[in-house]
Amino acid sequence: MSKPTVGFIGLGIMGKPMALNVLKAGFPLVVHNRSRGKVEELVAAGAQDGGSPRGVAERAEVILLCLPDAPDVEQVVAGPNGVFEGISPGKVIVDMSTSSPALARRLAARAEALGAAMLDAPVSGGETGAREGTLSIMVGGDGAALARVMPVLQAMGKTITHIGPAGAGQVAKACNQLVAALMVEAVAEAMVLATKAGVDPLRVRQALLGGAVYSRILENHGLRMLERRFEPGFKAHLHHKDLRIALSTAREYGAPLPGTALVHELYGSLVAAGKGERDNSALITVLEGLAGIVAGTSRQEE
Amino acid sequence: MSKPTVGFIGLGIMGKPMALNVLKAGFPLVVHNRSRGKVEELVAAGAQDGGSPRGVAERAEVILLCLPDAPDVEQVVAGPNGVFEGISPGKVIVDMSTSSPALARRLAARAEALGAAMLDAPVSGGETGAREGTLSIMVGGDGAALARVMPVLQAMGKTITHIGPAGAGQVAKACNQLVAALMVEAVAEAMVLATKAGVDPLRVRQALLGGAVYSRILENHGLRMLERRFEPGFKAHLHHKDLRIALSTAREYGAPLPGTALVHELYGSLVAAGKGERDNSALITVLEGLAGIVAGTSRQEE
Repeated sequence: MSKPTVGFIGLGIMGKPMALNVLKAGFPLVVHNRSRGKVEELVAAGAQDGGSPRGVAERAEVILLCLPDAPDVEQVVAGPNGVFEGISPGKVIVDMSTSSPALARRLAARAEALGAAMLDAPVSGGETGAREGTLSIMVGGDGAALARVMPVLQAMGKTITHIGPAGAGQVAKACNQLVAALMVEAVAEAMVLATKAGVDPLRVRQALLGGAVYSRILENHGLRMLERRFEPGFKAHLHHKDLRIALSTAREYGAPLPGTALVHELYGSLVAAGKGERDNSALITVLEGLAGIVAGTSRQEE
Repeated sequence: MSKPTVGFIGLGIMGKPMALNVLKAGFPLVVHNRSRGKVEELVAAGAQDGGSPRGVAERAEVILLCLPDAPDVEQVVAGPNGVFEGISPGKVIVDMSTSSPALARRLAARAEALGAAMLDAPVSGGETGAREGTLSIMVGGDGAALARVMPVLQAMGKTITHIGPAGAGQVAKACNQLVAALMVEAVAEAMVLATKAGVDPLRVRQALLGGAVYSRILENHGLRMLERRFEPGFKAHLHHKDLRIALSTAREYGAPLPGTALVHELYGSLVAAGKGERDNSALITVLEGLAGIVAGTSRQEE
């Protein structure tokens, strides 16, 4: 059986390495991206230029999306010259963006009315996971459609979990992002406490890594915080956006998330200070501002 | 060189398996505990009964403590019939309790005035780590004294980190406990969000375990929360106490810990509801109370 043509829309920090892995797995690939440079890189690697979301949907059987936020997804899928205009029965749209569960359910229903299917399949594992093809992919939507696109997803991810019906993948991703945010906050508070108490925060981090609270976030974000490496990585304003989705989903279902709400506010103050493009580990600078360590650190971080 | 006699005071959930590991490593052991039953268990295993903290300090060269809270440490070390009354020059007291950095510094200064040394050496790794001898031990105090007791600590722990001067071990432990608390809160919020949104929380946990937010707390506490297994484990009122220490230390040094303060309040409401003896994973029931899931869960958990 010949491999289906795959479409990929959104060639950013995550999307580009994911698209390259699809290509490497031997799928014919047709791509689109708002800025042209990334398209040309993919064409040089063997992909075709779809010209528009509609063009990609006309030429591919499986259409993958990896976009920054829910409004982008709505525009690219349901807007003028969008995926829905090029879709035909039997095709499967897979939205790997971190978007809202409510939008995922709405778009899946419209895709079904067009005879197609749409899955929400956001990912965890960061740029490294995207590059190495080891992402955790959380899928919401029709199981039969998932089975058909499984070989494509396996080119990008290691753990592929069918969470439930349409929107369930985005709920799982919201859970992932709130857990990550509270872990970043935890590491930031620990590093600030150690520093203010006159104790070497690197040794504290080292001791904690050997115990029950080991995590990749303590390892990687902890080191970034102490070495003041705030180039992204995962941008603070995107994590802020993800927490907004978690909180609005929680409001919809009546779930109280006091810790998530707190970290959302702290990220908000980072974004308001014009630092939203920094890595999310820059959250520590908000606490340092509160602690009056600013004078000591602002030189290092600017 | 013959092995020094080791004293052990406080044979609770953590202390008992730690004392047994010291015994197993071949150190002569003399013990004391407030309730007699644990003393008899250790005597049956080959230890001697010291009769009192003073009696232990008179007979042992290295005196280990593993007590619930700072006031217990102060009473056992500096109170009537306490360790200081039995101590003599050259002996080393090692406080493995989770206590306050300020008390650790005060007692270390008094021990030094008596010609002895006192280290703060709290541990991470839980009951499993205590039993298997794989604890992470965070040490504050004199480096020469640490070198002398190192073989004893190696009988109980795998990662032994000299963090800094007296009190530094307790600062590191405060950092560890606040990180753990925020991670428990994160897992609880994720499980509540998934449940309220009608998504299988077990599948969400599974997907998250495969990604960047993997932690033993997500694995173990997450499962406890979903299976309603709230027998301790690590008691909620002790975690509440640890956060109180972190917050008072933070206040002393001017470090703002907004996330820690929030979880301290949530644990406080669990304790106030008479549920402080439950495992700290019962923190999820506080969120469920806020969410109005109480009706559905109270039958299961009582």
